[in-house]
Amino acid sequence: MYVLLVYDVEVKRVTKVHKFLKRHLHWVQNSVFEGELTEAQIETVKAGLHRLLNDETDSVLIYSAREQRWLTRETLGRERGETSNLL
Amino acid sequence: MYVLLVYDVEVKRVTKVHKFLKRHLHWVQNSVFEGELTEAQIETVKAGLHRLLNDETDSVLIYSAREQRWLTRETLGRERGETSNLL
Repeated sequence: MYVLLVYDVEVKRVTKVHKFLKRHLHWVQNSVFEGELTEAQIETVKAGLHRLLNDETDSVLIYSAREQRWLTRETLGRERGETSNLL
Repeated sequence: MYVLLVYDVEVKRVTKVHKFLKRHLHWVQNSVFEGELTEAQIETVKAGLHRLLNDETDSVLIYSAREQRWLTRETLGRERGETSNLL
């Protein structure tokens, strides 16, 4: 699955959440990550986030498409994130 | 097209950008908007953003899928944004 993940977490948890996500996905903008993950890998990411998040205040959106080509991305303004494909 | 838009702009422009986007899309999380737009409407949104953004510091990602059903969304933690379908 091609996954697009956007987090909105309290400042004190940003670093932990960001570091955790960088181990699994590519960083594309401030709080946005993307990547190709299997169903099992998605479950791993979700389980990891459940441990890190405060469900009362934090929110993570996970969008997934079966094929990456179904989703096109365009950037306005500054390009952020990494261009590296290394996980 | 089903559009998913994530902005990362300097604080002083957040309110203007947010207000502009709310006129065209549904707010789903802090800096995330979604909605069904025609190609012409997407161009209107892009033109409006070009006027509002500072290209050196601000960044907006626009993801689009031809069919909404190609994209599934899951929320971890708190649900944000509006449930209303009114534009």
